[in-house]
Amino acid sequence: MRFETLLIVGGGLIGSSIARAARAKDQCKTIYIADTSEAACKSITELGIADGVADGHADHFAAQADLVILCTPSARLATTAMNLMPSLKAGAVLTDVGSVKGHLVQALAGRLRKDIHFVPGHPIAGTENSGPEAGFAELFEKRWCVLTPPKGTNETAVADLIAFWKGLGSLVEVMDPSRHDMVMATTSHLPHLIAYTLVGTAIDMETVTNKEVVKFSAGGFRDFTRIAASDPVMWRDVFLTNKTATLEMVDRFIEDLTALKRAIRWDDGDMLLDNFAKTRDIRRRILDADKD
Amino acid sequence: MRFETLLIVGGGLIGSSIARAARAKDQCKTIYIADTSEAACKSITELGIADGVADGHADHFAAQADLVILCTPSARLATTAMNLMPSLKAGAVLTDVGSVKGHLVQALAGRLRKDIHFVPGHPIAGTENSGPEAGFAELFEKRWCVLTPPKGTNETAVADLIAFWKGLGSLVEVMDPSRHDMVMATTSHLPHLIAYTLVGTAIDMETVTNKEVVKFSAGGFRDFTRIAASDPVMWRDVFLTNKTATLEMVDRFIEDLTALKRAIRWDDGDMLLDNFAKTRDIRRRILDADKD
Repeated sequence: MRFETLLIVGGGLIGSSIARAARAKDQCKTIYIADTSEAACKSITELGIADGVADGHADHFAAQADLVILCTPSARLATTAMNLMPSLKAGAVLTDVGSVKGHLVQALAGRLRKDIHFVPGHPIAGTENSGPEAGFAELFEKRWCVLTPPKGTNETAVADLIAFWKGLGSLVEVMDPSRHDMVMATTSHLPHLIAYTLVGTAIDMETVTNKEVVKFSAGGFRDFTRIAASDPVMWRDVFLTNKTATLEMVDRFIEDLTALKRAIRWDDGDMLLDNFAKTRDIRRRILDADKD
Repeated sequence: MRFETLLIVGGGLIGSSIARAARAKDQCKTIYIADTSEAACKSITELGIADGVADGHADHFAAQADLVILCTPSARLATTAMNLMPSLKAGAVLTDVGSVKGHLVQALAGRLRKDIHFVPGHPIAGTENSGPEAGFAELFEKRWCVLTPPKGTNETAVADLIAFWKGLGSLVEVMDPSRHDMVMATTSHLPHLIAYTLVGTAIDMETVTNKEVVKFSAGGFRDFTRIAASDPVMWRDVFLTNKTATLEMVDRFIEDLTALKRAIRWDDGDMLLDNFAKTRDIRRRILDADKD
């Protein structure tokens, strides 16, 4: 056990799942959860997934915690970290679960106490549901968690956090914050923006009713609706905080789509076939990776 | 039993699944399959899913068939129909499973024998796999099949084909061909084009390796790869034959994506939130429809 006392700030899908997993996998002795929402605190208490619940002010828990995991919406991460800073126990590890890392590292650069070890993190796991009730202990099982410690971070702190996430069932990768943000713009942020757009475009059609869209969604549309049902606040913050990488990906995507559109207009079947054939291989590689 | 003898032309995923389902659900007495591929014919014979298999020339089977279902690639449907025309039994029902209907109806308008009942169809079912081995009897279970009979089509022929598809487990809807093509452009064709594009854009990134794309695909990307692994030839033909509706949908989509991109660039969080919030409802309605 690397951390005896754990404080989770924000008890939603991810936070409550960490609490459940840490308990189930015996990764710490005491688990505290803080949440600014009264309803969430009530729910967390009823679920019995924490040894203590704080409605807003978590200073007394922060003073005891060996590991503090910030699971608030992205936009509030830096402020939450700074508010807790004076209360934290010397030598504590501070981490988060935000989907964007460069923005947070920059926001906190030079502002952290020297005796606190800040190791930003991002578990690549989630569902389209939110709130404490939506969490479950197996959420991180065999899913990647990326840690992006700034240069010079205490190595023991990083090793301890790696061990903690592995203890929850995760695979762990250490990466540079800006590389993380570009990889995620490709594999996660652009797909979400595209899914939101596609579902929005379909809803807005005047000539096709929403009833028809629902009825015939099995033709491909349906897969997009799961992603487009993700938490709107979280995703707004992701796009605004990972702006540069997202805009670059959107531009590339629009270029590629425009090229395919032009091929359709000019009956360039070979160009379409070349493009559609090359995307099959990546599916095979993903399915192969599942097996390993 | 509405049709005693069935001829399926094209024994791939859809054709071989119809054969299996028709047998399993006792929807006809004799099932013939024709396929231009020698390998497919061998496989169909080995699978034992037909009472007779024809390599290319199916005239002798066509002369006996009460129902002929064309399951060839879209681009060959009209030619296949015209080639079989002289051999067909008087009073036979001729249908197909193509994803685009207006194009086929136009291509065959005024060219069909008066004693043949042409009822175009489109079962909205499939997987990313192709070939006779990929088929299974349950493929059409609780899935929609849309029939688009031209005005003046024999009502008994339409009723018999509806009964046949219901017999395979499908839900059936009758629709105008051009309306079908617009609905499918929205719920199926645009989603496929978008998925192909997105996976292509990710593969082509210079700064993110394909290995990283595979590794971190759980963030949203993965869902797109299943659709982007669909049969390239079939989808080339879909886009080229449903050109007008597809191009209109792509234009609308690019407009909507550009608006979201602009909101990201100018930090318009409210606009993003409004758009992301409205797409959740359609997911709930799809899940509700599943329950009914």
